[in-house]
Amino acid sequence: MSDKLTDKTLVDFLDALASSAPAPGGGSVAALSGALGAALVSMVCNLTLGKKKYAGVQGEISALVEQSEALRHELTDLLEADVQAYTGVSKAYGMPRDTEEQKEVRSAAIQEALKGATIVPMQVAETCVKVLELCTPAAEMGNVYAVSDAGVAAVMAEGGLRSAALNVIININAIKDQAFVDQMRGKLDGLLAGKPELKDQIYDLVVEKL
Amino acid sequence: MSDKLTDKTLVDFLDALASSAPAPGGGSVAALSGALGAALVSMVCNLTLGKKKYAGVQGEISALVEQSEALRHELTDLLEADVQAYTGVSKAYGMPRDTEEQKEVRSAAIQEALKGATIVPMQVAETCVKVLELCTPAAEMGNVYAVSDAGVAAVMAEGGLRSAALNVIININAIKDQAFVDQMRGKLDGLLAGKPELKDQIYDLVVEKL
Repeated sequence: MSDKLTDKTLVDFLDALASSAPAPGGGSVAALSGALGAALVSMVCNLTLGKKKYAGVQGEISALVEQSEALRHELTDLLEADVQAYTGVSKAYGMPRDTEEQKEVRSAAIQEALKGATIVPMQVAETCVKVLELCTPAAEMGNVYAVSDAGVAAVMAEGGLRSAALNVIININAIKDQAFVDQMRGKLDGLLAGKPELKDQIYDLVVEKL
Repeated sequence: MSDKLTDKTLVDFLDALASSAPAPGGGSVAALSGALGAALVSMVCNLTLGKKKYAGVQGEISALVEQSEALRHELTDLLEADVQAYTGVSKAYGMPRDTEEQKEVRSAAIQEALKGATIVPMQVAETCVKVLELCTPAAEMGNVYAVSDAGVAAVMAEGGLRSAALNVIININAIKDQAFVDQMRGKLDGLLAGKPELKDQIYDLVVEKL
């Protein structure tokens, strides 16, 4: 049997999530939310390709689905990577701390692991932004019968971004390397800027077309 | 092999979602998003139960996890019900329309099926609101080490609500029974009112506690 989270059934994944096991948790959900958004963009494209009514946008839609599928696969990989990074942090916290030397080694290992556990949700956040940006052309050009799916895609992509952001913040709050912290905070602020508004804009466009 | 969507692996569910098959689609994702939120509330509770530091809130947390688990199971059932309702609409549209009588029978069947396909996402929306309302006590009283999970839960519950709303609107726009339409619009407006603000409030509370 595979150990991969993405090989679990939805029911088993939800059970594992609800349990007191620390992983999977919100970090995995952030990646999954983005992957659901990317899959819905692909769905809209796949319902548009080959349709006479949309003959004029076949090239654009082909390019769009290529991007959304690549992002979907990145996000499913990141879902697994998040659990690995989280496990790394847990292992570092579990290191012996009986002597001064052990304490130093452990502390350095924790700091290193926390950086890894920051970088993964940051990648999730970045990838969710890319998915969100595909939702505008999907809603504008895609099959109008699937336009609500483009709206749901935007909600899930922005939800993945906001969820990933919480997982970045929780980790950087424990990191002592101030230069790294500042760099990550700056990057996160840039990713978040204007995205709730973009999501609402796509949502309103979708409601208008329904 | 089970035909249930929730017995699919995450990878297979995402593949099915991305395909041109009309179901699963945004309606299923709305229910799944709510279920992910409910599971995260349960996780926060399960990481709080039995912990000395939280001895004072064990009763409240026990009651909370009972509610979140019930809502999670309702939402996984609604995920299946959404596909059934969607299939009902497709079947009705596929009915013969060669004679006037057939046209009338088909039209009545479509209208009936559309009502079913409106009621399911409305139930998803209602259940997501209930999940969202559990996120405040989870963030306030739950294990502070899992507070980011309470924040992600709020994002997913509100995302499920907004996604379900699109699926309600797309169906009522095709329904001719004006009394039903007005009733559904009123109900939906009530469910949506103040919820983005509540989500942001919980999110800000979580960021403060991180």
